Amino acid sequence: MLEHPPLYPLNSWQIIEDQFILDNILQNETIFALGNGYLGIRATFEEGLPGKVNGTMDGIYINGFYESVPIPHAEKGYGYAINTQTMLNVTDSKIIELYLEGERFSMDSGTVINYKRILDMKKGFMTREVTWRSPRGRDVEIKIQRLVSFNSCHLIAFKYEVRPLNFSGPITIRSGLNGDVDNNIHEEEDPRFTARLKGLGLEVTDLSVEGTHAVISQKTKRSGLYLACSMENHLCGKGLAGIEREQKDDQAAIRFRIEGRRQKKITFEKYAAYYTSLDEPVEKLSQLALETVTEAKNKGFQELLKDQKEFFREYWENAGLNLSGDLRAEQGLRFNLFHLMQGACTKGGTGISAKGLTSEGYDGHYFWDTEIYMVPFFSALFPDLARKLLEFRYSILDYARSRARDLSHYRGALYPWRTIAGEEGSSYYPASTAQYHINAAIAYAISKYIEVTGDFSFMLDCGAEIIFETARLWEDLGAYIPSKGNLFCYNEVTGPDEYTALVSNNCYTNLMARWHLNYAHQTARLLKKEHPETYRRLVEKLDLKEAEVEDWQIAAEAVYIPYDDNLKVHPQDDSFFDKELWDFSTTPPGQYPLLLFYHPLVIYRYQVCKQPDVILAQLLLGDDFTLEQKQRNYQYYEPITTHDSSLSPSIFSIAASELGYSEDAYRFFTMAARLDLDNIFRDTYYGVHMANMAGSWLSLAQGFAGMRTAGKNLRFKPYLPHNLQSYRFRVAYQGSRLEIAVTKHRVTYTLLKGESVEFKHAEESVSLASGESASYKLEKQ
Amino acid sequence: MLEHPPLYPLNSWQIIEDQFILDNILQNETIFALGNGYLGIRATFEEGLPGKVNGTMDGIYINGFYESVPIPHAEKGYGYAINTQTMLNVTDSKIIELYLEGERFSMDSGTVINYKRILDMKKGFMTREVTWRSPRGRDVEIKIQRLVSFNSCHLIAFKYEVRPLNFSGPITIRSGLNGDVDNNIHEEEDPRFTARLKGLGLEVTDLSVEGTHAVISQKTKRSGLYLACSMENHLCGKGLAGIEREQKDDQAAIRFRIEGRRQKKITFEKYAAYYTSLDEPVEKLSQLALETVTEAKNKGFQELLKDQKEFFREYWENAGLNLSGDLRAEQGLRFNLFHLMQGACTKGGTGISAKGLTSEGYDGHYFWDTEIYMVPFFSALFPDLARKLLEFRYSILDYARSRARDLSHYRGALYPWRTIAGEEGSSYYPASTAQYHINAAIAYAISKYIEVTGDFSFMLDCGAEIIFETARLWEDLGAYIPSKGNLFCYNEVTGPDEYTALVSNNCYTNLMARWHLNYAHQTARLLKKEHPETYRRLVEKLDLKEAEVEDWQIAAEAVYIPYDDNLKVHPQDDSFFDKELWDFSTTPPGQYPLLLFYHPLVIYRYQVCKQPDVILAQLLLGDDFTLEQKQRNYQYYEPITTHDSSLSPSIFSIAASELGYSEDAYRFFTMAARLDLDNIFRDTYYGVHMANMAGSWLSLAQGFAGMRTAGKNLRFKPYLPHNLQSYRFRVAYQGSRLEIAVTKHRVTYTLLKGESVEFKHAEESVSLASGESASYKLEKQ
Repeated sequence: MLEHPPLYPLNSWQIIEDQFILDNILQNETIFALGNGYLGIRATFEEGLPGKVNGTMDGIYINGFYESVPIPHAEKGYGYAINTQTMLNVTDSKIIELYLEGERFSMDSGTVINYKRILDMKKGFMTREVTWRSPRGRDVEIKIQRLVSFNSCHLIAFKYEVRPLNFSGPITIRSGLNGDVDNNIHEEEDPRFTARLKGLGLEVTDLSVEGTHAVISQKTKRSGLYLACSMENHLCGKGLAGIEREQKDDQAAIRFRIEGRRQKKITFEKYAAYYTSLDEPVEKLSQLALETVTEAKNKGFQELLKDQKEFFREYWENAGLNLSGDLRAEQGLRFNLFHLMQGACTKGGTGISAKGLTSEGYDGHYFWDTEIYMVPFFSALFPDLARKLLEFRYSILDYARSRARDLSHYRGALYPWRTIAGEEGSSYYPASTAQYHINAAIAYAISKYIEVTGDFSFMLDCGAEIIFETARLWEDLGAYIPSKGNLFCYNEVTGPDEYTALVSNNCYTNLMARWHLNYAHQTARLLKKEHPETYRRLVEKLDLKEAEVEDWQIAAEAVYIPYDDNLKVHPQDDSFFDKELWDFSTTPPGQYPLLLFYHPLVIYRYQVCKQPDVILAQLLLGDDFTLEQKQRNYQYYEPITTHDSSLSPSIFSIAASELGYSEDAYRFFTMAARLDLDNIFRDTYYGVHMANMAGSWLSLAQGFAGMRTAGKNLRFKPYLPHNLQSYRFRVAYQGSRLEIAVTKHRVTYTLLKGESVEFKHAEESVSLASGESASYKLEKQ
Repeated sequence: MLEHPPLYPLNSWQIIEDQFILDNILQNETIFALGNGYLGIRATFEEGLPGKVNGTMDGIYINGFYESVPIPHAEKGYGYAINTQTMLNVTDSKIIELYLEGERFSMDSGTVINYKRILDMKKGFMTREVTWRSPRGRDVEIKIQRLVSFNSCHLIAFKYEVRPLNFSGPITIRSGLNGDVDNNIHEEEDPRFTARLKGLGLEVTDLSVEGTHAVISQKTKRSGLYLACSMENHLCGKGLAGIEREQKDDQAAIRFRIEGRRQKKITFEKYAAYYTSLDEPVEKLSQLALETVTEAKNKGFQELLKDQKEFFREYWENAGLNLSGDLRAEQGLRFNLFHLMQGACTKGGTGISAKGLTSEGYDGHYFWDTEIYMVPFFSALFPDLARKLLEFRYSILDYARSRARDLSHYRGALYPWRTIAGEEGSSYYPASTAQYHINAAIAYAISKYIEVTGDFSFMLDCGAEIIFETARLWEDLGAYIPSKGNLFCYNEVTGPDEYTALVSNNCYTNLMARWHLNYAHQTARLLKKEHPETYRRLVEKLDLKEAEVEDWQIAAEAVYIPYDDNLKVHPQDDSFFDKELWDFSTTPPGQYPLLLFYHPLVIYRYQVCKQPDVILAQLLLGDDFTLEQKQRNYQYYEPITTHDSSLSPSIFSIAASELGYSEDAYRFFTMAARLDLDNIFRDTYYGVHMANMAGSWLSLAQGFAGMRTAGKNLRFKPYLPHNLQSYRFRVAYQGSRLEIAVTKHRVTYTLLKGESVEFKHAEESVSLASGESASYKLEKQ
């Protein structure tokens, strides 16, 4: 692993860019992106960068708002996904241009005398301060604050302050909306980005400019979705010399002419709002959008900022996150938590895109890592959000049923490997559709969500139906194979590790399938006994037979788990140990990630892993392994894992923590904590890595603090990595909130909220009443 | 297997269409297609079918003349093929329109009173006879003869006769060239046809019409190829009332106005010729094309037809093919031999497309089946052609070297799975690039070609270099695997059977690799000893080390051959017997071929084969199996093979013959013999199945007659299937020609040409001098 120097000054609560370097803009557009889970905006400049058309990646995204795009299969196959859904770059509402006596302000002309951009994670907004000298020598101080509101999820707000330093004269602020937008990435050489057709742009159906506001109504070309985007503008104080309105086919703008006076600050506020037909009836969208910006204008930027600060105050209080002794890790982890919150929609109805709303990377698709990495994080920090994510999966269950039919399963459901609205959007099936384990990921996340929150109502409302339908697929997919002692096998599947594909008996898949079949059987038995009405309803709706439920258990008991008696290691799949070891000694450092430098036929031929597979199984299903097996597996797989996937370091960190490999644990934790901030994967420009961000927190909670849930049991087994002086975090658990504070010699558990809580510290049972603390001496690491 | 009634009257030497049915036109366009291996023309009508624009598939193709088309990978991967080559539908030169007092003749208007189309396989031309009544009641008799010349490979000739039956009046014949052409199939739902971009049409660079001739010069948009297409026209006898010339951007036409008289026959001849920049310098093309048609016109249609008959007389004499007792099989086999000759270019420089020149199916690509199915056929019938096919492979060796680098092999060569000019054009690598066995197919074909022809000069000129370079790939691809007893294994490959992909130790692949490594080693040793100069030249050119040559043998000896000791059957690959058996009992008959009705993930999960794999290995490498193993393998694999590939029936027929399963042998032979003629695969409209056509002959020669070569040994072990009264065929062998004639009780071998020949009849040694015969009693079957 290479050492990655920090790209930003270390700071507990802020990300600071203190020098304007044109080459860094793409990376910074992601790092400083703002969002609220519903709406996201990349940190491109309000005034644009006229000289750098191809170097910047403007993007405003609405979670779940997509275009449907035919997949251009070079060679078609039966059951291949036909369309994919692409998150759209929507109406550009951030436009604020500044003209100083006719000279247009731009970061790539004139001279940037002073520059600073601050992402304030504590308060949830961004500030940009620039002192700029125009080509003709006009000096001006500009300060721009921007926020994407958590109070009103449809809203973006800007506060724009200008102070002419060495001149008086006419200043124009031009505030605009632009409906002529398109996605940025259409067809890249990088295989991680799917090839796309050009011309994803929205069509403008209506546009109006009036007073100081404007609204553009747009619709997608194929997916039948509509949106309205409005803006309202306000010049604070006096000095307004005139207003001019512009209206083109797809653009609206308002020019504010101001009598600028030397050293006199001009304050301008802009509000933009988005509504889509996913939220409200089409005919109401523009009206709602206008109402929202009018309301915001009446409230004013300062008040909105106050609300925002309050939201984040509570968020950070709930998180209670502190690391002392490693500011770099603390900053990274906070940055990750900040972006996690920005990517998750409190409104519900959607998933979380792999890149949040920081870019259109991976087409804005939702993957299995939502369930395996992000749901556990939100369950502990923001349980309502975790429920909403799982409810979203319930909302697309019919698509999953239909996908199972595409694959000739006459019943059951198979969740799409990647999707926005429910349709499978994968184009390379060996590393997508073949990853049947997504079904188990969803069932597993439901079980863990219920364990952590105690919210069994979710099981009754949605969970059981998902679990039964997806279990059916496992039952139909597997087969009793004579040559494997008539055990129940899964052939032609792909596990989490994407450097191996289309294998038999992927250990992770088989373990998860076994767990899933068992859980489905237990859930059916439990419902039948304790919630007979719900059970009856489901039996009827799903045409569920008693024999089928029994078959789940029979199959589960018979699932074949590959194990190598000589190595005493779990092979990743039937063929894994029959492959040659990858020769890392002859692989140049510049040839990672391997998938960008080797044909899949080459990679698949070797024992080499992109990410945890068996190691993930032994984390999720710890009781299925002995400690010795876990150790041997770790020692076998870690050296052959490239960590080319951002899903890798956090899981290896947790696994290393559990096994006492604290050096490894901290090294992987740091990598996870700083992955985007230090641009370790060299692709942060393309959006943050949401699952890794959640994983970095799991490395702390499940790794350092050894947090686990099982049934109704909560357990901790904390240690203090020697790089830290102390750490602290808080978790929600069954309606309570618990703080875990670890110092050099002690751990202190405090029940911050809730009547009482019971859990285990290592093997010791602990019971805390409201407000109570318990403190334990730590074993030496 | 369903029974397929014959679609055409049974006839020894002709294919006859005696009723015009619009729905059959696509099928008949293929069946009646003409070609000479350089040039091919689908049997669409000269006058077009104006009312049936989408139902007909006009096509004139030049072997090796292609456009380069980017492959639209939905998700790109390192080393994926970037462009594919598509055989182009070129300038339409067949246009002859007929106007009877202004009424245009068309098969889909008016009334077809009489109709007959005959493909004369004995003489190599086609006749269409029509008695037609125009919508306004004009009756006319039309007779059109068409041939694609074997004497002058650039030439197509038409003889067009018209007799007005019940009217006198002006008749116009419009003869045209149309440069506004495009390929027919762009993006089909059927995965066997690759998706393609629209707009493959050629650009017109020059066009002229003069006297009775015209020429169009065209070029491709991307591949940089040029062609010229000319026509010359001749109205025989008197009656010409005038000539008008038409010239548009991309079309040239000449109208012949004729004073038609009741019952008086008008005879018109048309000649068209094509030259491309693959043959001649660009600046000479149009001149050469014009010269060719002028010469043809001077010669006249009758003379051309005479040459054609002479060519085919010799062809059929060399083939000496007779089957008595089953006219259907005889007709089918002759039809196959006819199309094989039509698809192979005597000029050299190209391969044979999977569909010959009868359609643009599979983009006109060359595959491995050229070597495994067609080269053995041509070696025995037309050895010069076999050599030309192998020389073509030598000509693209540099592409194969480059492809090996794409796949991270630092030396050696990997032949493209599908190509026209040498570049790999596959889009779905699991069933293409992963089929490394194409390397062995080429080496194997070289070895067999030399065995049969005795032409060791090919080895010195081309063969050894191919064999060494491709052997290097086997050496680099394999690995000594500890878990397999340190044997040499091939992981992540696909064998011939495409219902399984990306497996380890595909039995066919490993056996062929072993053979190939051994053969390369032996060849190196032989050359070093007996052709030291050639060897030195190769050692230098290829930087071949002695140790490397030794490694080939060491690896060959260590190749792992999968074998199941319990079943005593060779598993198709390491995982094959660990899969569930496909349930044929629940597969509806309409759901074949499986690949059109099931996702690859479903098919790959089961023991089900599209075509022979182990069974092909035991045919090609018979000595590697005991008779009992062959029997058990046959009994295991035949029931699980769907024969969804046209490469299947002929091989199963030979295997069945060898094992004495004469019922199966004959059933599969019939299927192979009649596959296109009876449209058994329901896709003959899309072109004939060239490899199967060769395979059907192999079913006779290698199957019924048990012909094998090994080193310098030739052997027969004939039997007479009970459906036949006798059969006869001739083979070229080391410069001689031998006839094998089998009747109910006897086989008679006659040396028709050559000094002497030695071979074995069963275990008996036979030696024949020139003109001699030997006759043996047949064992009872």
